[in-house]
Amino acid sequence: MREFILKANRAITSGDINLKDLPGSCGRLDLVCRCISSALFLSHDIRRDTIFYSVHYGKPNPPVALKFVGSQLKRVSPDERSIALFIKKALSKEHGPQWRESTPGIYHAKREFKDIVLEKIMEGRNVYLLHMKGKPIEEVINRRSYREIKDRGFVFILGDHIGLSEEDERFLRDLGVERISLSPLELHANQCIDIVHNVLDKLEYRGI
Amino acid sequence: MREFILKANRAITSGDINLKDLPGSCGRLDLVCRCISSALFLSHDIRRDTIFYSVHYGKPNPPVALKFVGSQLKRVSPDERSIALFIKKALSKEHGPQWRESTPGIYHAKREFKDIVLEKIMEGRNVYLLHMKGKPIEEVINRRSYREIKDRGFVFILGDHIGLSEEDERFLRDLGVERISLSPLELHANQCIDIVHNVLDKLEYRGI
Repeated sequence: MREFILKANRAITSGDINLKDLPGSCGRLDLVCRCISSALFLSHDIRRDTIFYSVHYGKPNPPVALKFVGSQLKRVSPDERSIALFIKKALSKEHGPQWRESTPGIYHAKREFKDIVLEKIMEGRNVYLLHMKGKPIEEVINRRSYREIKDRGFVFILGDHIGLSEEDERFLRDLGVERISLSPLELHANQCIDIVHNVLDKLEYRGI
Repeated sequence: MREFILKANRAITSGDINLKDLPGSCGRLDLVCRCISSALFLSHDIRRDTIFYSVHYGKPNPPVALKFVGSQLKRVSPDERSIALFIKKALSKEHGPQWRESTPGIYHAKREFKDIVLEKIMEGRNVYLLHMKGKPIEEVINRRSYREIKDRGFVFILGDHIGLSEEDERFLRDLGVERISLSPLELHANQCIDIVHNVLDKLEYRGI
């Protein structure tokens, strides 16, 4: 299982979504949509082994967490507008502490970023923070380590255009979350997801 | 220099673009937009060393070629809608055999996919076709070969959701264009671009 957790610092937390302005008034919801597209869509297929979490901290009602389950997803297309329409439906609901399903495979809850991370740690997952200053991913997840660690499942934590706060980074460090880096350049979160999937795909299906 | 050439078999060839329906009536223009986003945008920056070509073969007036020059691009944002608006402007113009600038860094012309490929071959570029059955990219572009071949520049040819025709593939094979593969899975063209950039970024900036 592969899971991604995006902390979306400015992403909107109500259903009042202007589809003509995902980047501005919706707090970079375009980026959230592209992340979902990269996390869950293959050409002519869906990644059934992947779950994507987006935790929104924008106005008017933060936080709201969304969960997209690849194996259950239906009718969503990989374009930003289609995904934004499904996000709009989920954000228009009332949110409680438990996950509730909005449309097939898409869940919403009143949950904090940190709580979702803690849950993954408690589940025993391999949890990594994607960070420019981390170890190159190839040194951590590679042919030698993969077979040994894969059954625990992988969780990758991503920041948006603003990134994680110092407090978040300290929280993750205290939990022993390892930092890994993908590139010498600063990439968009969706580009990071494509690269992570590629590293794991090659290990899973080609053994390299 | 890095260049990408996308053959967009169904992408619209007039400015009659419905921004609410990029995947359907615009012939998967959403995919073209995501490719441009992946090819030219970094987090908080633009890839000035990259040019992206999209050659449209959809209705009503195929072909129309578009060229996006990273070093000249202005005011475009990485979201699909923003990019589609600039594409709409370029496709609304009259197209001649020569490139004409529509907005800063965005050019349009009445050109065939094959002619653009031929031009790159004539310029002496390293031209590759991204193909599931190709050699793994790491076997072709790696630490040993990179310094030697990088000055000629890299060109990567991509298919869309339909892919290249047998005739296109034969044409490229006859020109000696090498096939390289990125993944054991069939990916979207924009996901391929993210992976190619990552391979080159690591070689260029980390030497690995």
